[in-house]
Amino acid sequence: MNDLSKRSVIAPIQAIDLMTAAFDLQRKGRSVIHMAVGQPAAPTPWVVREAAERAVRDGKIGYTEALGIPSLRERIACYYAETHGLEIAPDRVVVTTGSSGAFNLAFLALFDVGDNVALPAPGYPAYRNILKTLGLGAIEIPTTEDTRWTITPDMLAEAHARHDLKGLILASPNNPNGTMIAPKDLAAIVEACKRLGIRLIMDEIYHGLVYGFPTETALSFSDEVVVINSFSKYYCMTGWRIGWMVVPERFTRTLECLSQNLSLCVNAVAQIAGQAAFDATEELEQVKAGYAANRDLLLERLPSLGLGKLHPADGAFYLYADVAHVTSDSMQFARKLLQDTGVAVTPGIDFDSILGPQHIRLSYAGSQRDVSEGLDRIEGWLK
Amino acid sequence: MNDLSKRSVIAPIQAIDLMTAAFDLQRKGRSVIHMAVGQPAAPTPWVVREAAERAVRDGKIGYTEALGIPSLRERIACYYAETHGLEIAPDRVVVTTGSSGAFNLAFLALFDVGDNVALPAPGYPAYRNILKTLGLGAIEIPTTEDTRWTITPDMLAEAHARHDLKGLILASPNNPNGTMIAPKDLAAIVEACKRLGIRLIMDEIYHGLVYGFPTETALSFSDEVVVINSFSKYYCMTGWRIGWMVVPERFTRTLECLSQNLSLCVNAVAQIAGQAAFDATEELEQVKAGYAANRDLLLERLPSLGLGKLHPADGAFYLYADVAHVTSDSMQFARKLLQDTGVAVTPGIDFDSILGPQHIRLSYAGSQRDVSEGLDRIEGWLK
Repeated sequence: MNDLSKRSVIAPIQAIDLMTAAFDLQRKGRSVIHMAVGQPAAPTPWVVREAAERAVRDGKIGYTEALGIPSLRERIACYYAETHGLEIAPDRVVVTTGSSGAFNLAFLALFDVGDNVALPAPGYPAYRNILKTLGLGAIEIPTTEDTRWTITPDMLAEAHARHDLKGLILASPNNPNGTMIAPKDLAAIVEACKRLGIRLIMDEIYHGLVYGFPTETALSFSDEVVVINSFSKYYCMTGWRIGWMVVPERFTRTLECLSQNLSLCVNAVAQIAGQAAFDATEELEQVKAGYAANRDLLLERLPSLGLGKLHPADGAFYLYADVAHVTSDSMQFARKLLQDTGVAVTPGIDFDSILGPQHIRLSYAGSQRDVSEGLDRIEGWLK
Repeated sequence: MNDLSKRSVIAPIQAIDLMTAAFDLQRKGRSVIHMAVGQPAAPTPWVVREAAERAVRDGKIGYTEALGIPSLRERIACYYAETHGLEIAPDRVVVTTGSSGAFNLAFLALFDVGDNVALPAPGYPAYRNILKTLGLGAIEIPTTEDTRWTITPDMLAEAHARHDLKGLILASPNNPNGTMIAPKDLAAIVEACKRLGIRLIMDEIYHGLVYGFPTETALSFSDEVVVINSFSKYYCMTGWRIGWMVVPERFTRTLECLSQNLSLCVNAVAQIAGQAAFDATEELEQVKAGYAANRDLLLERLPSLGLGKLHPADGAFYLYADVAHVTSDSMQFARKLLQDTGVAVTPGIDFDSILGPQHIRLSYAGSQRDVSEGLDRIEGWLK
């Protein structure tokens, strides 16, 4: 009998594998410091949980419109007015099952089997793996310090000449390094995409988590970009699996049909909760202040541990550290670190097939006590 | 610039479009009777909502293992022991974002672009549409009263000779008609799939909602089938978007990698809630008694409305009625019925491209008052 498909042969996400291994250790009674997965230690804000509790108590948890509850789509549109002074029609907003659901829908809606889509290395591994399983070419463009770890218009044009690109995925702040694209560079790449006929998919899921760097949405520069965002990170709602995208309005009906067929709708409790998340700013800014303190602590202590070679940590809650002097196999490094010390970090091979084996990603979304304790354990172990 | 992909051109689910139109009417103050979408009017059981409330109050709503929380996977495995006397290893259970998520994962894991998968007409439209968007051939096999609206081993062999089938999707109870496959016929089709090298994907999401017909899971006849189930229907949890599948154990890791990349994990609140659903049997059996009463009422009154030509209504909460004597365009019929009377039903074109235009599906998952009122309005309108 035919067994598994060829297209299902994709890599795991090491961060999740490490988290799963860490959960196993915890169940066995080990003390674990979670610095692998990009997940706030802070609970979902109180007003959000209150809204969810009310919805659950009322008992009406049914199917919603495939594009999302209309009032939530309106509230998300309003976020762009508040945060970026942009008028976005609610009809351009599609509520999705996390940003994961948005990537899946966007790739299906925009690209056919055999199309090539460019993305930077290092970058989030699921882009590459979803592209592959959907029959798309994932053209990784290696980035360097010279271009501040992003893809420039020249690099894009060169890759396009070779690969006839149909799309480009960028994230700012980027995962795994937290590095951002300056507004003028973002404007330039949006313009280059337009000129070359390449659809830009902009991952903005770490917006809100920025430490002094100017933040701009790609929507400020074009209505033709597809912008993806999420309630997981700034809003501390990872486990709720809710995100959204903003698309050109003529795409909405196609995305509605895809959504109906592929998911029916997004979890209704999460949608009601998500709408309340925009009222949790005070609590969320306190959480963010905790990340900033963690970041300061890491930036201060990592150099003395020999882990001072970092990408610019403009945003998100990650540091991406070069560990070439201690290992050429970041996977084995991460597995052994977890086994020996209970500290879970993510091996760079998640993000970059070439330079990944000599990097690790540290998430500082945990509590300040955990980050400090994690540093102590890593320090002792490296000695 | 390249616009939308060719593969995104799929049909909407008319039931959802009708539901969305019905929500619009309700917001404008109209009285609507929902008989379009397959959704229990009863709220999610109280113990389930209590479990969800507790989880939300505790605040720890984070990422879970991609395959699902281990205790939930164990509880689902246990369901097969309780209900069917089968020993299923928890490692064979994959928790999914509704059965929708399961279909998406299963099709990607099992089939490559260009593979052909057979399915019966009438049948659930999302099968066909997901297959199409994933580059698979959806080979519809028309069924008739002669084979009690299902695919026999002979019909399968004939289609296989023509289309080199890689898979077969069957549902029992089936949507849109509630018609079931007798255990001996199910055993025969499982055997035929084995003989022909065709992977059987068995949709068992309406299990538990059966009115006197014998129920058997395909897992009783083979460990090689992929069985998909859901908390939406019997457990009254549509809006929570949680389901599961049982697969041969050697498939689990591949599904884990796909899940990690395509969704990270399933909504954590829904998983905790789902685990409690197995303790809600008393409440759920009361809900089911309501469906049985609705079904009796419809089977009694529909003939006098001229809608007595129905498929065998063994299970689920649907009746599939021939309306050829009043229309040859069930879509227009359904739209006009909704507009004129506020009663939402689903046009058969969702389920069958050939005979669908002369059928409608009535869901009787609503309250008894609604079903009775719906019948009154349809009766008045048809006159």
